[in-house]
Amino acid sequence: MNFTLLKTDARSKARRGVLETPHGTVQTPVFMPVGTQGTVKGLTPAVIHELNAEIILGNTYHLYLRPGMDIMEQAGGLHSFMGWNKPILTDSGGFQVYSLAQLRKITPEGVRFQSHIDGSQHFFTPEKTYEIQNMLGSDIIMVFDECVPYPSEHTYACNSLKITVEWAKKCKIAHKKNNTDKGLFGIVQGSTFKDLRSECAYALQEIGFDGYAIGGLAVGEPQMLLYEFAGYTADILPCEKPRYVMGCGFPEDLLVMVENGIDMFDCVIPTRYARNGTAFTSRGKLPVKNGAYKNDFAPLDPDCSCYVCTHFSRAYLRHLFNTGEMLGPVLLTQHNIHFFLELMRKIRTAIDNDRYVEYKNETMNKLLEGETP
Amino acid sequence: MNFTLLKTDARSKARRGVLETPHGTVQTPVFMPVGTQGTVKGLTPAVIHELNAEIILGNTYHLYLRPGMDIMEQAGGLHSFMGWNKPILTDSGGFQVYSLAQLRKITPEGVRFQSHIDGSQHFFTPEKTYEIQNMLGSDIIMVFDECVPYPSEHTYACNSLKITVEWAKKCKIAHKKNNTDKGLFGIVQGSTFKDLRSECAYALQEIGFDGYAIGGLAVGEPQMLLYEFAGYTADILPCEKPRYVMGCGFPEDLLVMVENGIDMFDCVIPTRYARNGTAFTSRGKLPVKNGAYKNDFAPLDPDCSCYVCTHFSRAYLRHLFNTGEMLGPVLLTQHNIHFFLELMRKIRTAIDNDRYVEYKNETMNKLLEGETP
Repeated sequence: MNFTLLKTDARSKARRGVLETPHGTVQTPVFMPVGTQGTVKGLTPAVIHELNAEIILGNTYHLYLRPGMDIMEQAGGLHSFMGWNKPILTDSGGFQVYSLAQLRKITPEGVRFQSHIDGSQHFFTPEKTYEIQNMLGSDIIMVFDECVPYPSEHTYACNSLKITVEWAKKCKIAHKKNNTDKGLFGIVQGSTFKDLRSECAYALQEIGFDGYAIGGLAVGEPQMLLYEFAGYTADILPCEKPRYVMGCGFPEDLLVMVENGIDMFDCVIPTRYARNGTAFTSRGKLPVKNGAYKNDFAPLDPDCSCYVCTHFSRAYLRHLFNTGEMLGPVLLTQHNIHFFLELMRKIRTAIDNDRYVEYKNETMNKLLEGETP
Repeated sequence: MNFTLLKTDARSKARRGVLETPHGTVQTPVFMPVGTQGTVKGLTPAVIHELNAEIILGNTYHLYLRPGMDIMEQAGGLHSFMGWNKPILTDSGGFQVYSLAQLRKITPEGVRFQSHIDGSQHFFTPEKTYEIQNMLGSDIIMVFDECVPYPSEHTYACNSLKITVEWAKKCKIAHKKNNTDKGLFGIVQGSTFKDLRSECAYALQEIGFDGYAIGGLAVGEPQMLLYEFAGYTADILPCEKPRYVMGCGFPEDLLVMVENGIDMFDCVIPTRYARNGTAFTSRGKLPVKNGAYKNDFAPLDPDCSCYVCTHFSRAYLRHLFNTGEMLGPVLLTQHNIHFFLELMRKIRTAIDNDRYVEYKNETMNKLLEGETP
């Protein structure tokens, strides 16, 4: 895996780059649609291709439990299993294990946890999650980490950090042995403590990774802290490596964090909101189930060129949700993923043209003008 | 609307024809995917186009209740509302009103019924269901009828028949006034009584329609009666008009009924079975949720050329159903609709080549060889 920083915006920290991976190249800044269980919910790979997604995300924890690694191995990995031949980044399961709360026990060796599906006992070590991701055929493997909750005590976050760094080392050793062109990313933890974020960022750089993720954000902290810590951490990461804020975010979050020098994002927001009937538009969120749209024959977003906006009205989409038709979530997911990918394309063009700040301000103002009536 | 009978198979009653409608032509024998509520469940119109469906079905009863006729009128009809620009046949609501059982009262003037959604009171007359279908922009309008249950007493079926014929006359009068190039089909009722089927068929021919449906079948009667009455009724219908068995059927039903001279079919079977995890294949039904498929990397149907069979394995599809992923029903629906449409294409080719009987026997044997292991 290789990252080339193409340029930095003239008047902000926004960066243009390109990732080269075993399954192809990815232009950054990039938003990665989430395919938790081997599918971006509701979209065929053909549609995801048409939407020009260059990379998607897969989840170690979920795929390890279902269909299980024996089947993933027989399938020849995740690309072949799900019919997606472009890059895949896999998370390490650290975040899912964190989400299990009462169902897991963390030790310096790893995490013992119970499946949320059948209660069966499992044990993840750094080496094991590395091996799972390797077997999945991931283009970008994430180290195993402990994602600490917000808020956390300094002592807890500090102790956790030591473990996270140790685990990162173990993953790096496994990666070296593996001798592969796949990428391996470290994950900076440290909660909302700048000294800990620094300590972690430097410790990881000493180990050396192909890219650096910023974890433990978007876990319930106020938006200002999210921005502050994403920006603070980005500043202490090496400029020649990609920076990835995990699990983020809303369109406005992406706009702010790109300005702070972040290159990569993933989030379930566009797909999850779509299933619940909320469209993202250039004028903010549009809750299409609302009765106000029952005879509104405008497209979801008059500024959008996607298949959904060029073929269907709000009234039709509202009808689909109102009658519980599967096509409602399917179409809204297509639109929302298009919206996020198109936003990133425009962001990249703005940086290319050294007008990121203007672009961001214009776009943000429109987004915040208020939800479309 | 116009129907041209192109030819009849040399050694059976199977017919090749072509329907010309305001929104395009339809090759017969044809299977019409069902789009009850303004959507073929789970498929975008783009996908339905790619599958080469030439006509789909819409439902008066459902669309009248939701989104309602004010919205359908503002939308400019069903084609525009749902983004489908090829032909649509609409049923009259007779079958749905029959399904309401305790919620409706039939009089010679029409049917008073309660909405299954909110209990609101409505009254359908023949003229009203005609007008609704006209406003929906249907290419082929069905007369309003009473679908009698199976089994029925001769007296009940006979009395009902008088009403059905009166209603058909009223629809014909409305259609004449309308002076349109849309088609109007009569519906032959008469339960499982040959004298009543004859009486109805002749009475309808006297009124004169663009095509004739055979209703009141596939309502719980034994398969032998379905075939017997479809064939019997087809024989007493005019050969220059299309014949349509409503609400049918399984692949083997279509094969038998085409041989008996039926031209048109519609059914929820391919879409409903898909949502429940059953694929139709050239070797019979395949229940993909079955544990037997968890590491079966063959396509659903090795003889199928559809997007699903050329890109995904049974193991992947089983995984999607096992994890409750929306993409499971979406992909199985694509496959099943392709399977039904491809079956009809092969049927048409076989008739073109005067080898329908051989084709039917070969296909039936393969279907009945037993479900794919």
